[in-house]
Amino acid sequence: MRILAFRTVEGPACPFYDGGMSLVVTGTVSIDSVYTPHAGHREQVLGGSCTYFAAAASFYAPVRVVAVVGEDFPADFRGTLESFKGVDLAGLETRAGSKTFRWGGKYLDNMDHRETLFTELNVLMEDPPTVPGSYQDAGVVFLANTHPAVQLGLLEQFPSPKLSVADTMDLWIENERDALTALLSRVDGLVLNYDEAEQLTGKNNTVAAARHILEMGPKFVVVKKGEHGCILAHRDGLAALPAYPAEDVIDPTGAGDSFAGGMMGSLASGLAQGEVSDPLGFDAIRRSLAHGTVIASYNIESFGLERLSGLTADDVSGRFAEFAGMMRLA
Amino acid sequence: MRILAFRTVEGPACPFYDGGMSLVVTGTVSIDSVYTPHAGHREQVLGGSCTYFAAAASFYAPVRVVAVVGEDFPADFRGTLESFKGVDLAGLETRAGSKTFRWGGKYLDNMDHRETLFTELNVLMEDPPTVPGSYQDAGVVFLANTHPAVQLGLLEQFPSPKLSVADTMDLWIENERDALTALLSRVDGLVLNYDEAEQLTGKNNTVAAARHILEMGPKFVVVKKGEHGCILAHRDGLAALPAYPAEDVIDPTGAGDSFAGGMMGSLASGLAQGEVSDPLGFDAIRRSLAHGTVIASYNIESFGLERLSGLTADDVSGRFAEFAGMMRLA
Repeated sequence: MRILAFRTVEGPACPFYDGGMSLVVTGTVSIDSVYTPHAGHREQVLGGSCTYFAAAASFYAPVRVVAVVGEDFPADFRGTLESFKGVDLAGLETRAGSKTFRWGGKYLDNMDHRETLFTELNVLMEDPPTVPGSYQDAGVVFLANTHPAVQLGLLEQFPSPKLSVADTMDLWIENERDALTALLSRVDGLVLNYDEAEQLTGKNNTVAAARHILEMGPKFVVVKKGEHGCILAHRDGLAALPAYPAEDVIDPTGAGDSFAGGMMGSLASGLAQGEVSDPLGFDAIRRSLAHGTVIASYNIESFGLERLSGLTADDVSGRFAEFAGMMRLA
Repeated sequence: MRILAFRTVEGPACPFYDGGMSLVVTGTVSIDSVYTPHAGHREQVLGGSCTYFAAAASFYAPVRVVAVVGEDFPADFRGTLESFKGVDLAGLETRAGSKTFRWGGKYLDNMDHRETLFTELNVLMEDPPTVPGSYQDAGVVFLANTHPAVQLGLLEQFPSPKLSVADTMDLWIENERDALTALLSRVDGLVLNYDEAEQLTGKNNTVAAARHILEMGPKFVVVKKGEHGCILAHRDGLAALPAYPAEDVIDPTGAGDSFAGGMMGSLASGLAQGEVSDPLGFDAIRRSLAHGTVIASYNIESFGLERLSGLTADDVSGRFAEFAGMMRLA
């Protein structure tokens, strides 16, 4: 896998802009306030699932964003997103008269758990964003966490993706089981946290839970375990991967979304470069998880997008090589 | 790494019996009662750290046991241990007038935690076992969990091990800090659980805790995280490894000791076969953890030694190859 240096070197126009392998992410762009036990806090920083996903994916492939913000959304936040070369904001709607989604969270002492301080849904309570016509040839679609009926409605606007993956959360598992079940019968893959996998299936063994979700429709399930890595359950096999061993975790916000961005970006890149023939194949997905792991490990080293903003393609490929070395057994 | 088929094929006399690389384990041999939430229970089965360690290590290298039991120790338990080819019980003392250590435990619903039902220390309250003169040429020594002063006393009976590793537990961290500190300045490596690493250092990040323990003396620290794998902190680097993704966990008893047995056995075997030149080297230890992972994954599939007793060298090498394949990234 060649890590594309969109942000650091000049190169030829990316093949994705012309082809059918382009990567689209649907989800949120938000204004976050984050409090941590050891590293202080940040108020009103750029956040949201699309934000972290797109920044992470941009190290591998161009990525098109579908999200909606209010007219209070700062121009420099848009500029930050645009500074990640290959991030296309044609699908980022600024809605007049609306306010941007805001979220505040506080991490507890071990950084493994957080409490939500406030959630101002604002524009998320209104109509979802529309997928631009220019995005409809997307080959790879990631539906970041939102109401599963909205995710399904967005997915239906893409005529023929080669790979579609959704994220979800405890709220929908508890309250919108039918809509989530309908979604699961339509997507190729599901990404979720280990406690959500247990909640969805009633099984308290992560591997058993992941296997059970396969019976609900998806061809593969990725269970995220934070500092403990991830589990892949696929119709063709099981795999497990540790997290990159991180000592200094400053802000875990966006770890899951940047993980998904690295994962989906590397799959889209592999498809475009001809390195991946079947984006649903066990081995292709297994390898993509390592890219997600590496990008996420950088993301948590600072607040918001601070660390990814300063990152080079050499940084990413260097840590990937280090991580691959840790795993090399035969 | 060639996995030695001691138990399944006839072969030449093992080089370890003559050479200085022989592996010794000191610790307990016990009579256990184990209760599980889903798979029933077993009363009065063969257990103890030496038992699981030796059975696991025997797939890689001959292993000499130093432990003491009482005169109530069943002859067929000794026979079970001897059925693992390469397990040398010359150092398993049967003490007249004493009773064997007995332990009872009950696993809670998620199999991650257990409660101790009873602990009858019996012979463990008396003088520790003596290391036979024939064991003193040991090249590789594992000090399974017991009082750190006893571990140090046992270690001092080996004139020149090339590799010495200790396990410990919360009881000694809390109550015998000085003795543990003295031990840590003398061993090459420490193996312990993640919660014990946090208890020992006061650091709630596993990587930070492991690094901190390096400053207390050992050249490397292996932090066991159960279903989440393990972390290696070594003076020359960090590594992380997942557990083998296991769906059917019947009895986790002995998982840590069989992990250590596979780890130390594979290092001893690598030394004897000339595949490992420096048993303290980062890469040698990193690879040995994968062998520990694979053997432990078998151990938890049944009660006591039931699964390891039926295991073949082909089983072990097959799962190792599968595990290595899961990790292969470059």
